[in-house]
Amino acid sequence: MNRSDNQRLGRSSVKLGCDVYINSSASVVGKKEGEGPLGLLFDMVGQDDLFGCSTWEEAESSLQKDAVYLALEKAKLKAEDISYIFAGDLLGQSIATSFGIASYNIPLLGVYGACSTCGESLTLGAMAIAGGYGDKVLCVTSSHFASAEKEFRFPLEYGSQRPLSASWTVTGSGAFVVSGENARGTARARIVGMTVGKIVDYGLKDSMNMGACMAPAAADTLERHFVDWNSQPGDYDKIITGDLGSVGQTVLFDLMREKGYDISSVHMDCGIEIFDAQSQDTHAGGSGCGCSAVTLSAYILKQLEEGNWKKVLFMPTGALLSKTSFNEGQSVPGIAHGLVLEHIE
Amino acid sequence: MNRSDNQRLGRSSVKLGCDVYINSSASVVGKKEGEGPLGLLFDMVGQDDLFGCSTWEEAESSLQKDAVYLALEKAKLKAEDISYIFAGDLLGQSIATSFGIASYNIPLLGVYGACSTCGESLTLGAMAIAGGYGDKVLCVTSSHFASAEKEFRFPLEYGSQRPLSASWTVTGSGAFVVSGENARGTARARIVGMTVGKIVDYGLKDSMNMGACMAPAAADTLERHFVDWNSQPGDYDKIITGDLGSVGQTVLFDLMREKGYDISSVHMDCGIEIFDAQSQDTHAGGSGCGCSAVTLSAYILKQLEEGNWKKVLFMPTGALLSKTSFNEGQSVPGIAHGLVLEHIE
Repeated sequence: MNRSDNQRLGRSSVKLGCDVYINSSASVVGKKEGEGPLGLLFDMVGQDDLFGCSTWEEAESSLQKDAVYLALEKAKLKAEDISYIFAGDLLGQSIATSFGIASYNIPLLGVYGACSTCGESLTLGAMAIAGGYGDKVLCVTSSHFASAEKEFRFPLEYGSQRPLSASWTVTGSGAFVVSGENARGTARARIVGMTVGKIVDYGLKDSMNMGACMAPAAADTLERHFVDWNSQPGDYDKIITGDLGSVGQTVLFDLMREKGYDISSVHMDCGIEIFDAQSQDTHAGGSGCGCSAVTLSAYILKQLEEGNWKKVLFMPTGALLSKTSFNEGQSVPGIAHGLVLEHIE
Repeated sequence: MNRSDNQRLGRSSVKLGCDVYINSSASVVGKKEGEGPLGLLFDMVGQDDLFGCSTWEEAESSLQKDAVYLALEKAKLKAEDISYIFAGDLLGQSIATSFGIASYNIPLLGVYGACSTCGESLTLGAMAIAGGYGDKVLCVTSSHFASAEKEFRFPLEYGSQRPLSASWTVTGSGAFVVSGENARGTARARIVGMTVGKIVDYGLKDSMNMGACMAPAAADTLERHFVDWNSQPGDYDKIITGDLGSVGQTVLFDLMREKGYDISSVHMDCGIEIFDAQSQDTHAGGSGCGCSAVTLSAYILKQLEEGNWKKVLFMPTGALLSKTSFNEGQSVPGIAHGLVLEHIE
């Protein structure tokens, strides 16, 4: 196979025409994530959410820096071996990325898809490899509970109360080395293709219930994926959303049922998995770019690597709001990008 | 030629293996831009910078909406014909984009490269076409003087004074339809290839002198471009930066001279061209994502179309700062992405 075999399935779904691998990955998380159900699987758990920095934003930058360092080390690569880095985060003007990865001197293509950013960066990274534009690329994203609350809602110092529909932004960063080669035989999974999502806006205006805001976008991408790929829920061992949480999951099930699909038996949501909502008091679940990224690195890729799952649809979900748009009375539209990942036989 | 001929030149330069065209484009600008030297060339000039909206952010969204509408109309296409839209802007969480283009229902890949965003979106759009991932894509970006001052410096209502090194954010949006076909023979230019930029940080901390902050990134990409493409300044009719302005241009000339290149006879800066700094009191020149985008659409593509220029290097420049990072004492790193554009014989 070669890259001229890239095959379009419908308007914005692509089946890649050559092998594209996730060669290595790394996850760096905060204390609370380390205490959650997936805690033992993460590569690095900080004991202080400032990670030795003086601001929350710098702390988030250091998460990205560490995740990239570990992903490169695991793949036995240097920064100079990487053609491009596809990276982004939740902060205004993606500053966690700008200040986190600058020192690696890797050509940067910055992306923004709110919490769907992990899906977008892997989509573009895989396309760059299958298009012959680079040998190896890095895809990285992050979020931080404290910087996100300050950016989107209220600084933690205000001690604001949060409703049960609110989600808890994950403090974490996931980094992935993607290439067309698996010479060492240690690649973690294969990226088979993708379905690119569009903005879906049901007019919801509650930044404390982002699961409900994002579920319609997840349903839209999912339905289009099934049609484009001529597939059914049962074709996947897991259909994995990013951070819908418990409220958003219910909405997604209802929307998909209306479209004629029952995904309840194969669905998993990273936001639900990463915390024990009862004991950790995280309400609807985890959220943020980092949520799906670290869950992919630590848990999902492990299942694919071990062959417990043969094929999954990994679909991070994003809520497209800012403090400004929210305060000006705008709604919270959603977006979701799906990637088909397979076990390497 | 076909897409398997995409050719890498160095680490992050690509010569596309098939024809990729800018089929149509559109520019929508504010009143001040309409009164500048390029005023008569823009497709649409607003007489009120609120564009009939109630906030500056909504006004910026309406710029993108109008630019996309016009670009589609000129290419005789509908939104459904577009596989992906690569879009971004300067506002936190790219809200001008989210609320500007949502109604078109086009699958979105959001990008962030500060004022280099036009270069990044065209880079990824052209890669998507040459990789066989879509038939037609849209690349769009915007900025707005009032929303940018509020986002990065001070709301206009404060009446703050600005030093002479400050630039004036362009109110404008440029949209480009890119595809692999020129069936109607009306395409404006060919995208031959690109050099992707990396973050370059000389430690400058002055958000009122962004030209100086971005010039080192422009010099870095430019030098790498000359080496990767085995080219010289004289090989281009114009080497065009985005928004260095008069201060940044001087710095770029000096830096390039140190590297052994004299680009002074072929250099043009969109920020210098778009305003008459003397009579319009815009100090160092225009800036913002919209600056290079509308200048490309209205002026540069016109020169290429008419054959006055045969080949140019179009290199938008971006300053990677946020209000938060600036207030926390961080520097202002820069980035620049270059595209080789050619006249269609």
